[in-house]
Amino acid sequence: MEERTGVCFPLGFKAGGINCGIKKEKKDIAVIISETDCIAEACSTTNRIKSYSLLWSLKNLKNPIRAVLINSGNANVLGGKQGWEITCNIMNEFSNILNTNRKHVLFASTGIIGKMLPEQKIITGLKSLLKSASCFGGNDAAEAIMTTDRFPKQIEYKTNIKAHKKNQFVCLGGMAKGAGMICPNMATMLAFITTDAVIQRTALRQALKKAVNNSFNMITVDNDQSTNDFVVCLANGLAGNKIIKENTEDFEIFSDGLLNVCQFLAKKIAENGEGADRLIEVRVESAWSEKDARRIAKKIAGSNLVKAAVTGMWPNWGRIAASAGSVCGRFNPQAMKIFIGDYLVFDGFPCNVDEPILRKELSKKQVIIKVVLKSGNKSAVAWGCNLTEQYVKINMEKE
Amino acid sequence: MEERTGVCFPLGFKAGGINCGIKKEKKDIAVIISETDCIAEACSTTNRIKSYSLLWSLKNLKNPIRAVLINSGNANVLGGKQGWEITCNIMNEFSNILNTNRKHVLFASTGIIGKMLPEQKIITGLKSLLKSASCFGGNDAAEAIMTTDRFPKQIEYKTNIKAHKKNQFVCLGGMAKGAGMICPNMATMLAFITTDAVIQRTALRQALKKAVNNSFNMITVDNDQSTNDFVVCLANGLAGNKIIKENTEDFEIFSDGLLNVCQFLAKKIAENGEGADRLIEVRVESAWSEKDARRIAKKIAGSNLVKAAVTGMWPNWGRIAASAGSVCGRFNPQAMKIFIGDYLVFDGFPCNVDEPILRKELSKKQVIIKVVLKSGNKSAVAWGCNLTEQYVKINMEKE
Repeated sequence: MEERTGVCFPLGFKAGGINCGIKKEKKDIAVIISETDCIAEACSTTNRIKSYSLLWSLKNLKNPIRAVLINSGNANVLGGKQGWEITCNIMNEFSNILNTNRKHVLFASTGIIGKMLPEQKIITGLKSLLKSASCFGGNDAAEAIMTTDRFPKQIEYKTNIKAHKKNQFVCLGGMAKGAGMICPNMATMLAFITTDAVIQRTALRQALKKAVNNSFNMITVDNDQSTNDFVVCLANGLAGNKIIKENTEDFEIFSDGLLNVCQFLAKKIAENGEGADRLIEVRVESAWSEKDARRIAKKIAGSNLVKAAVTGMWPNWGRIAASAGSVCGRFNPQAMKIFIGDYLVFDGFPCNVDEPILRKELSKKQVIIKVVLKSGNKSAVAWGCNLTEQYVKINMEKE
Repeated sequence: MEERTGVCFPLGFKAGGINCGIKKEKKDIAVIISETDCIAEACSTTNRIKSYSLLWSLKNLKNPIRAVLINSGNANVLGGKQGWEITCNIMNEFSNILNTNRKHVLFASTGIIGKMLPEQKIITGLKSLLKSASCFGGNDAAEAIMTTDRFPKQIEYKTNIKAHKKNQFVCLGGMAKGAGMICPNMATMLAFITTDAVIQRTALRQALKKAVNNSFNMITVDNDQSTNDFVVCLANGLAGNKIIKENTEDFEIFSDGLLNVCQFLAKKIAENGEGADRLIEVRVESAWSEKDARRIAKKIAGSNLVKAAVTGMWPNWGRIAASAGSVCGRFNPQAMKIFIGDYLVFDGFPCNVDEPILRKELSKKQVIIKVVLKSGNKSAVAWGCNLTEQYVKINMEKE
């Protein structure tokens, strides 16, 4: 049975994905189309170098949005003047076929840097892509945005905010990609979130910012940061709910839902880290400041030495401690506690825990590391993945 | 023929290294002894968590120094109260045998975190260690401070500052260790530099700070920062030269020599990066500020993706660009130039260079990456190494 998955879950969204020839056989262009105009809010890379696709989208975000084009296999960045021209040509054609203005469409790209986007292939593919789009196309789109991802990443989420129709509720849907070049402050990652909510722009902005800050901005695969990162949330209002404004109960519910969607996708990205087979969740508690908590959690989750020790199931908590200390947060090492899974391994001094028990914790699909700093009341969670020889192999070789 | 190598090169220094049982067979304790009192200046880790050995040394640095004890195989950190007691016991014994006060000796440790230093083994070993020390013991000491290092790192350097005796000159010598947990702002690295120069303390401090800033602080193996990093320079004044003061020609010559010694040892550490077989030198030129230049150079040299691409001899300059951009320095990507070896690969747009030529550049023992930002007149050089599957393997397994 065909299902409305991912970005197609909320009312009024269609999606699709096909191969147009950027890659040999795998799907490489995707589309998301809304029946009606959406308000769009986004967060994007802080990298000084930005892809043309991202620059295009940032320019249009303030306008009503009808559709998003996404390609994988090519990052569309650093191509000189020609790179921008190609981008404009493709987006003109895309908006023409959609019968809308070029101001109402967004673009996102992911893949290798340094090759020109194959303009003609993409333009030729656009018609079939748009024909293929349907409310059951969530899977195809989620597949078409993958690069080294091992699996597509989608989520469907129903809030309990009442929609206009009886027994219906405001919904959210999302898809994401990302596996390498994943680092705090976004990554070579793209995430597309749709909702049928009626919501004020400022409320959507605030909810998205908070959700991204506690999800995509807290994952790290390799401390490398991409030129293309982009998280966009499209709200088309088709649920017909009472408009969601800031500082209301519905806003809290919506924000919570959006955070859930973002965290789910972010964790999937970390879990899918190139060559990785384990998700590492780092919880930092009772830190002096939120900044300390976030920086320490991310530093540990991103430490090559911690990540390699997890691969080897070696409970080397010294690396966790050294990593925490390197951030120069405010805490007293003698008061610090470190847990691996449920086990306290450092409590101001080394604790005696049988190594086989800890090895078992480190072999779990989801490894939990907790650091309690006892210097305040702030906390943060970051996600990363283990480092394997496979990671190096993947990144030594050309795609 | 026996030679005065490394730290034994300047007048009046002896050294030695033996196995005392921290490791199974390899040498694990080393000593440097000066005939006469030295002034000592040092730079050390900014990690919040510091080893007891480092804490001991920081306390004593202001005093006249006669000897340094160094152990490998155990980091002597995070052992609670007992860790500090063990440290004091060992250093008391060390100074007793040397017939000096405990205030006149330094201590440095490197190795695994989280095990208590084997007090009795070290104390028992001290006598043989001190007996073994001679002016030909530089090699033994350089070996005894190694952990995962593949080779000992030593240097001898003669300045043209005239010593008291005819035809003699002020000399510098040094040894270092480091291979993993190597990151900007020092690393699991130790470096010991000796000189027979007569020099003002403030002049020595200034020269060392500058030298460390442009050598050890510009290397990165894995972005992980240790709790034990320590660079110390001991000056015993036995050359009898005219005292070196700041803002003099001799000071410039001495500083230059010290920078040479530090850069030589720093590059050796980067070259010796765990699992690595290539040194990567990253030069950033015409940056807007020195801070920009340094941060961008270090970011590129530390990028897992750049490092893995070097291993695969894949001229993926896109990773270099993305890495440069991620630092958020002030530059215009369209004005940027990127060179691999002598070849311009990006000049605002991708340049056509035959891939086999670039593969050859990336297979060299010393790979040169140059980024010209055209936004100012500041520059910096950083050193790193390639990332191999072997790195992961080494760090998965227990020592």
